[in-house]
Amino acid sequence: MEDLQQKLFTWIDRNKIKAERLLTKLVQQKSVQGKESEAQAIILEKCRQLELEIDIWEPGGKQLKEHPYYNATRNNFNESPNIVGIMKGTGEGKSLILNGHIDIVPEGDEKQWKVDPYSAKIIEGKLYGRGSTDMKGGNVALLMAMQAIYETGIKLKGDIIFQSVIEEESGGTGTLATVLRGYEADAALIPEPTNMKIFPKQQGSMWFRLTVKGRSAHGGTRYEGVSAIEKSTIVIEHIKLLEKKRNKRISDPLYQNIPIPVPINIGKIEGGSWPSSVADEVKLEGRCGIAPNETMDQVKEEFSNWVQMLTEKDSWFIDYPVDLEWFGAFWLPNELSVSHPIIETLSGCFEKVMKKRPNIEASPWGTDGGMLYHSGGIPAVVFGPGVTEVAHFPNEYIEIEKVIQAAKIISLFILQWCEVAEE
Amino acid sequence: MEDLQQKLFTWIDRNKIKAERLLTKLVQQKSVQGKESEAQAIILEKCRQLELEIDIWEPGGKQLKEHPYYNATRNNFNESPNIVGIMKGTGEGKSLILNGHIDIVPEGDEKQWKVDPYSAKIIEGKLYGRGSTDMKGGNVALLMAMQAIYETGIKLKGDIIFQSVIEEESGGTGTLATVLRGYEADAALIPEPTNMKIFPKQQGSMWFRLTVKGRSAHGGTRYEGVSAIEKSTIVIEHIKLLEKKRNKRISDPLYQNIPIPVPINIGKIEGGSWPSSVADEVKLEGRCGIAPNETMDQVKEEFSNWVQMLTEKDSWFIDYPVDLEWFGAFWLPNELSVSHPIIETLSGCFEKVMKKRPNIEASPWGTDGGMLYHSGGIPAVVFGPGVTEVAHFPNEYIEIEKVIQAAKIISLFILQWCEVAEE
Repeated sequence: MEDLQQKLFTWIDRNKIKAERLLTKLVQQKSVQGKESEAQAIILEKCRQLELEIDIWEPGGKQLKEHPYYNATRNNFNESPNIVGIMKGTGEGKSLILNGHIDIVPEGDEKQWKVDPYSAKIIEGKLYGRGSTDMKGGNVALLMAMQAIYETGIKLKGDIIFQSVIEEESGGTGTLATVLRGYEADAALIPEPTNMKIFPKQQGSMWFRLTVKGRSAHGGTRYEGVSAIEKSTIVIEHIKLLEKKRNKRISDPLYQNIPIPVPINIGKIEGGSWPSSVADEVKLEGRCGIAPNETMDQVKEEFSNWVQMLTEKDSWFIDYPVDLEWFGAFWLPNELSVSHPIIETLSGCFEKVMKKRPNIEASPWGTDGGMLYHSGGIPAVVFGPGVTEVAHFPNEYIEIEKVIQAAKIISLFILQWCEVAEE
Repeated sequence: MEDLQQKLFTWIDRNKIKAERLLTKLVQQKSVQGKESEAQAIILEKCRQLELEIDIWEPGGKQLKEHPYYNATRNNFNESPNIVGIMKGTGEGKSLILNGHIDIVPEGDEKQWKVDPYSAKIIEGKLYGRGSTDMKGGNVALLMAMQAIYETGIKLKGDIIFQSVIEEESGGTGTLATVLRGYEADAALIPEPTNMKIFPKQQGSMWFRLTVKGRSAHGGTRYEGVSAIEKSTIVIEHIKLLEKKRNKRISDPLYQNIPIPVPINIGKIEGGSWPSSVADEVKLEGRCGIAPNETMDQVKEEFSNWVQMLTEKDSWFIDYPVDLEWFGAFWLPNELSVSHPIIETLSGCFEKVMKKRPNIEASPWGTDGGMLYHSGGIPAVVFGPGVTEVAHFPNEYIEIEKVIQAAKIISLFILQWCEVAEE
């Protein structure tokens, strides 16, 4: 075993340039929602090189669209294929899904980037570009780990089911489609950007919209109207108290260092149409965190009841209740015990490569792990080489050395999880 | 004099249908900013009929654009003419400007109108349509008064300078252009919709924009950011205190029944771009009332100093000060003593026609009276037949009977102010 491990690590070290080249090619493809096919073509080529059993399809169909966890923001997935590539085992061993999303969020304000966001420019060991950290670097770590196994001729008992999915950034329809297509496994690993931390639990989230009513009037006689802007300051304060209440009851030690385990963020406000008029409507849009052990329905009910209590704060809300909607995407929470075999195995592999104990934490955001668990019953762990802080931000980057370290840890994890049949 | 008065009133009563027809034609022309020429053509025709000395021109030129009170929101006034029509007096008498704006604000959400906003439909003595009250009905009252004098063959000592101006709804460039073109008079009357009240004083106003800064972060770790939305609730509260402070010192008895003589209205709020991100910027736009006896510069200074005091409320504002801008249009305040001869004369005429004392108040909004006074030194009174409450609102209307009453009051006022030379 020590010998096999050494072979894998040596191959990975010697082929570092392969990881760098693959990541460069992937980052140079701007695989935002609806434009994933060029990046998937690169993934496909790599799957062929590794002689995987390939399944490529555009998600769709009644079963998907009527699924309770279906929450896509578009109507079809034409030219947005999912790819699954299977490295068949000899049988008997535990199977493993390696899941990474190919979609990226847009680059945002380009002026804030010090390099072209699709240049994949490398500066002092860091490869810059949108999607480098979230999560093409993680995907490359998966493929490097698999290639190391392939190139060194190691045969495994369990199947490896590699998945390059669309739509993670929009709520997880790509991964839901893999589950509905029948892909399952004894465990899953998702290399989202965790700063090399291991996340057995993930916070889910949902988007809400609060519509606050006022009554219009001319600004010069504003006392004849009721300002929806002033009323929304009451609503904002009220929602902060709900956040406080919800977080007070969280006692999981994984959250002990996190100031607000499941935040409620009001991220957008818009109301009124003219400086000289009293605003008659304000819309607040936000994200409500879902604790790993909560269901979406529980959170919705608590939130709705809380909003109704606004009438106790201000009688205006009796006749003009604040409207609550849940809209757009959602990300399911995920909860795995820290003593689950995947976590223990992965922790051991981490220690072997990194010569230290891993940080085990709960993530402040959802991943496709929630979808795999809630729709497919597949226990999933999140661990990857990307930099949490730069995901979705300008000047996103990843350290190439971390990709290499993650590839080693994952290759070792595959060996231990799927078990070696023969060399 | 009693005899002349009777002649005028009789002519006006017998020609009520002329007022109705002229107002219908004017309301049917959608004379929003940039589209005033068709409505002005109707005014022009009437001026020709009354044999006025006509001046028609498109405002422009360096003197206008460099004037400190120039605040137009567009670059040129092509096809947006001003019209001035003079009924020359025989000399010696006091001159009078009769000023009305031809521009209207847009109709807004048409679904909220029970009639087509440009139908000028008459229902139970009320003529409905955008601009009927603000202020084409007032303009028709001016023209009816002048026509009554013309048709009855009364000759006046003083000149009447009738002005049909553009741009009042956008800050008064049309009226400024009349002053710069040399038109002046001993007094001015502006028939804005006052509900037949007499306004010797008018509140001015300016538009401000406050930019509140935050620091972005992912909503799942919102504690790593600073929400510009939360910070703006502090700013809103702070501005309310400024409003309180400013209004506390107003002791003018004309304001005694007005809850907030010079309101500060925050009419628009917009900030953040994504429900899952902490908002890093919020913009608040509003209207700050200017008391009749204040200057714009005084108000700007007080406002700016107050905004700087936010640092005492929250140290965040030390490093991230709220940015204050004054933008868009402004309306100058206006102040005339209630014992000014125009007010006393007009009050007397009102009493003669209406058989009761007029209400004398201060208006909660600016008019071109501020511009006439501050740029031309022309004392102006505001008095008109329109309905204050429906100006700028859906289902704007005017009572035709009020237009007739106003025409009578104004015709009498002209007689007394300009003095009769001969019949």
